[in-house]
Amino acid sequence: MNDAARPPLDFYFDFISPFGYFAALRIDAIAARHGRRAEWHAMLLGVSVMKVMGLKPVLETPLKGPYLTREAARYARRHGIETKRPFDGPAMNPLPAARAFHWVRRHHPERHRAVGAALLDAYWRQGVDLEAPDTIAAIAAEHGADRSGCRAACESAEGRALLRAAVAASLARGVFGSPYVIADDEPFWGVAALETLDAWLATGGW
Amino acid sequence: MNDAARPPLDFYFDFISPFGYFAALRIDAIAARHGRRAEWHAMLLGVSVMKVMGLKPVLETPLKGPYLTREAARYARRHGIETKRPFDGPAMNPLPAARAFHWVRRHHPERHRAVGAALLDAYWRQGVDLEAPDTIAAIAAEHGADRSGCRAACESAEGRALLRAAVAASLARGVFGSPYVIADDEPFWGVAALETLDAWLATGGW
Repeated sequence: MNDAARPPLDFYFDFISPFGYFAALRIDAIAARHGRRAEWHAMLLGVSVMKVMGLKPVLETPLKGPYLTREAARYARRHGIETKRPFDGPAMNPLPAARAFHWVRRHHPERHRAVGAALLDAYWRQGVDLEAPDTIAAIAAEHGADRSGCRAACESAEGRALLRAAVAASLARGVFGSPYVIADDEPFWGVAALETLDAWLATGGW
Repeated sequence: MNDAARPPLDFYFDFISPFGYFAALRIDAIAARHGRRAEWHAMLLGVSVMKVMGLKPVLETPLKGPYLTREAARYARRHGIETKRPFDGPAMNPLPAARAFHWVRRHHPERHRAVGAALLDAYWRQGVDLEAPDTIAAIAAEHGADRSGCRAACESAEGRALLRAAVAASLARGVFGSPYVIADDEPFWGVAALETLDAWLATGGW
């Protein structure tokens, strides 16, 4: 089959996850390098980690929380990524942004990557308050989405239902972290696994 | 200073961890490539993960347990590592082997890497029952350690005290996972971080 017909890579991220942000900066290039495209999915670590896995938030986990904060800063330095948002929290409430994102995916599917990337850029690189629906809608509108529809989706029944369905679908596929990529049913968790994903796609797997 | 005087890389692993085993197969070569040596330390995930971090064992964690089992198998295939020990458990009791290992580190320091590697090889590649002190002592003796001293250390007050001190020291340095490497105070967690460690040592860090 030709490239356009090949199934997309499914890329899962949480807006509150710096490693999800780092992966978002690379996933489309990795996909394109192998003649693929990426479908982006906002997920919720609060559901997968706390409710399904029964763990506490990673930033509140002794030893691991401080390690991951340090690793995020190290990754950012290595890759020349400058951010205004501290990696050690506190994390925002990701629900309005995640609802708006999934509303864009439904109603402007061709814009969903650009809107997702712009929301992550605003939160992480620019340090913008991304809990405010007006801000979310303005950013989405800059990237071709309907501003009032997007604004409403941050709190509406439709926005809630779209996000709830997306999170349920992610859990049904086993997604528990951010970033998480599924390529042809093969899962890759974490930003370091992007190298493995790249090799997997290049070789056809092993 | 010359290479011999440079501080060692501290390599931490738990005998029950397949990723610790995978890292053990590479750590000495990585260290040597940068004119360094590795000091091996057996640690206990049961203490760091359960008692300090307050988490459940990873194999009992929904979503993450199955993922890591699959990732271990994928890593092994990629690197041509054949094992007789299933990656999805059940895990053995690592205490006798860890006590004997630290007894060797104390009394035959020049043999500790070879004994650690041989114990991991027996458990993972050969599928040997590594809870039996006689087995542990026989393997250690093959690599130059005193058999009866090693046998006794699996259960003795000295063996217990050496392991307790080693685990406390690992926690004091923030070690929580297996593998975990500390190079010049910089921590690297997980087998994927070995690539980062290699780049860090090659460049002097960033």
